[in-house]
Amino acid sequence: MQFNLLNIVRQSNPLVHCMTNIVVANYTANGLLAAGASPLMSNNIHEVQDIQAFSQALLLNIGTVADWEVDAMIAAGKRANQCGIPVVLDPVGVGATPYRQAVIRRLLAEVQCSLIRGNVGEIAYLAEVDWQAKGVDAGNGQADVDFLARTVAQHHQCVVAVSGAIDVISDGNKLWRIHNGSALFPRITGSGCLLGAICAAFLGVSQPEHYLTACVEACTYYAVAGELAAQSLSATQAGTFTVALLDQLASLNVSSITQYAKLSNG
Amino acid sequence: MQFNLLNIVRQSNPLVHCMTNIVVANYTANGLLAAGASPLMSNNIHEVQDIQAFSQALLLNIGTVADWEVDAMIAAGKRANQCGIPVVLDPVGVGATPYRQAVIRRLLAEVQCSLIRGNVGEIAYLAEVDWQAKGVDAGNGQADVDFLARTVAQHHQCVVAVSGAIDVISDGNKLWRIHNGSALFPRITGSGCLLGAICAAFLGVSQPEHYLTACVEACTYYAVAGELAAQSLSATQAGTFTVALLDQLASLNVSSITQYAKLSNG
Amino acid sequence: MQFNLLNIVRQSNPLVHCMTNIVVANYTANGLLAAGASPLMSNNIHEVQDIQAFSQALLLNIGTVADWEVDAMIAAGKRANQCGIPVVLDPVGVGATPYRQAVIRRLLAEVQCSLIRGNVGEIAYLAEVDWQAKGVDAGNGQADVDFLARTVAQHHQCVVAVSGAIDVISDGNKLWRIHNGSALFPRITGSGCLLGAICAAFLGVSQPEHYLTACVEACTYYAVAGELAAQSLSATQAGTFTVALLDQLASLNVSSITQYAKLSNG
Repeated sequence: MQFNLLNIVRQSNPLVHCMTNIVVANYTANGLLAAGASPLMSNNIHEVQDIQAFSQALLLNIGTVADWEVDAMIAAGKRANQCGIPVVLDPVGVGATPYRQAVIRRLLAEVQCSLIRGNVGEIAYLAEVDWQAKGVDAGNGQADVDFLARTVAQHHQCVVAVSGAIDVISDGNKLWRIHNGSALFPRITGSGCLLGAICAAFLGVSQPEHYLTACVEACTYYAVAGELAAQSLSATQAGTFTVALLDQLASLNVSSITQYAKLSNG
Repeated sequence: MQFNLLNIVRQSNPLVHCMTNIVVANYTANGLLAAGASPLMSNNIHEVQDIQAFSQALLLNIGTVADWEVDAMIAAGKRANQCGIPVVLDPVGVGATPYRQAVIRRLLAEVQCSLIRGNVGEIAYLAEVDWQAKGVDAGNGQADVDFLARTVAQHHQCVVAVSGAIDVISDGNKLWRIHNGSALFPRITGSGCLLGAICAAFLGVSQPEHYLTACVEACTYYAVAGELAAQSLSATQAGTFTVALLDQLASLNVSSITQYAKLSNG
Repeated sequence: MQFNLLNIVRQSNPLVHCMTNIVVANYTANGLLAAGASPLMSNNIHEVQDIQAFSQALLLNIGTVADWEVDAMIAAGKRANQCGIPVVLDPVGVGATPYRQAVIRRLLAEVQCSLIRGNVGEIAYLAEVDWQAKGVDAGNGQADVDFLARTVAQHHQCVVAVSGAIDVISDGNKLWRIHNGSALFPRITGSGCLLGAICAAFLGVSQPEHYLTACVEACTYYAVAGELAAQSLSATQAGTFTVALLDQLASLNVSSITQYAKLSNG
């Protein structure tokens, strides 16, 4: 694994169209800017199709989605598919309500996703495995995460990233685990949502045959940034971590990622 | 006053369904996570009723409310009432416009609230006392805050918390004043909104007959956290305070609250 | 240039009604509070007209605008015009999509703006000059920014502020350039949007014949605050800068602005 895509992101500043939720829109935009990408937020059906023509990636995050935003997401996703740009789906809290389940069913039926990124509860739902999900947070069961990632990736013919203490990323065949990270990640809101956006930026500067690698590079970059941001912090400095993570995303370089990365595959 | 509920919150991570405004959604989520609770934000009428089945508390905050969100709030509130989980109402800027007045009238008519939390201008409006309110900020008149709290509590048969330099909390009969806090609280946006959410978390792990105590514990915890967060800051470090408050909410423990708490009753 | 308006803002706490986007609403509110103004966010057509009666300024920012919000912006803008309070327009990403172009055409046709604030790509679009705009970020071409500012100011009979490494502000006749600032401004989201809100606060405590000066004072205050906030930071501390800028906005005083300001006119 080379970890060089971060430099490409910083050189080419890919525009990531984020259709995301009201909780994390600001943090997502700041995180993308820190990474070197350009955020554009719009959920308006009158322009989301046009935006695909000049975007490098599309993020669909259903965290606080409204009905009309689902229609807009589908319109944007279909156009992104036509334009050949990657679509990243973040099925926030999909198991929590029948509404979210229906939304994700529609999105997955109508849009070809390049990457689905979620926590283990969300991915388990998509794999139709029973899982103790609690609201939009990750459950804490003991399923075989590798199996979940591969199953969902095969079923939807895309890359799947399961975020957690150990990130698991698979295209249905190959599989990578990232052993970096920080216990502070789940203590701040939107840390998963921002990761989805950063994955979109990395996929946006890659060719489809390299989306698995792009996702692993993005998740490793993010996990190492969090690890280093948390290095001098106590377990309760969640507020400071929100700021330090942005600083690390902006300052981290390829050689540090290479030095700290702990990957395994299987 | 024992202040032990904070430990219960941290052990049981109550899920707080926040129907709140676009300004404070992120800060509210981060503050709840810091306190040990789990935030879930959704204003979508197609799922807000279902959410009550697995939530421990519901927050209704009208800060930037849209018409369809009012309908969703009422649907969620009625279901929360049926499920027996506490409903916290934050009547942001209720005196400012006839629209907000009508929204609050509808909410109070259709939903039984467990707690109404607002600044003195907002609570004075609900008490039908003339008050110089200015937009959504607290006015600065000299009404008898104790009287306001008791009046509104009796009228709506719930707990009322009036936030200010001195917090006043009453169930219409008993009344507590919290003399902790910081002048930096009104210098950051959403400090009142976040308090409402934290009250919801504390009520969510309590029985209805203890909602008054739960609210006093929540407000004391929050006021002491702000006091300690501001301790080493100058009066103009509002930005730093937003971060330091989150850190304090995460690190503050029951013995420190007990040590610093300055309460009076009347 | 006296730079004394900041003191007036801090003494009179003008209420700025912000009709703005979901990405920057929180940061805008915190920035206005830091400056000494009072933010009120509402995009609801049922109350935005009433709000003009007690506001000192109106901000229209189309960053994530929905159809119904455009109608509300026009209703609010017309009422603000009737009330004689200043209207600041931030045409976020106007060149990016036909939809945004149509929205801005409607707003400019129906509302008399006191100030249009944007980056060079946005102002170039309004001047009908070809410009390589990229999403909602500033392009990086070499147009004559002075010419753009004057042209748009004359055409719309208002003040125009073009934000960039050098800010350019003109009423179509006189023109000021501000040479302060920081390379960290474009590294954080909403730094331009917040500046628009702060300009609104400064115009809100001024008479129309002094709007040009008020805008120059606001932009100088903001640019110097950013310069000082960034003074001890590295180029990658974007997260820390979001916090430090708020602190500086709250602590900066008139004598420091006077000391650091680097203005030219032409």
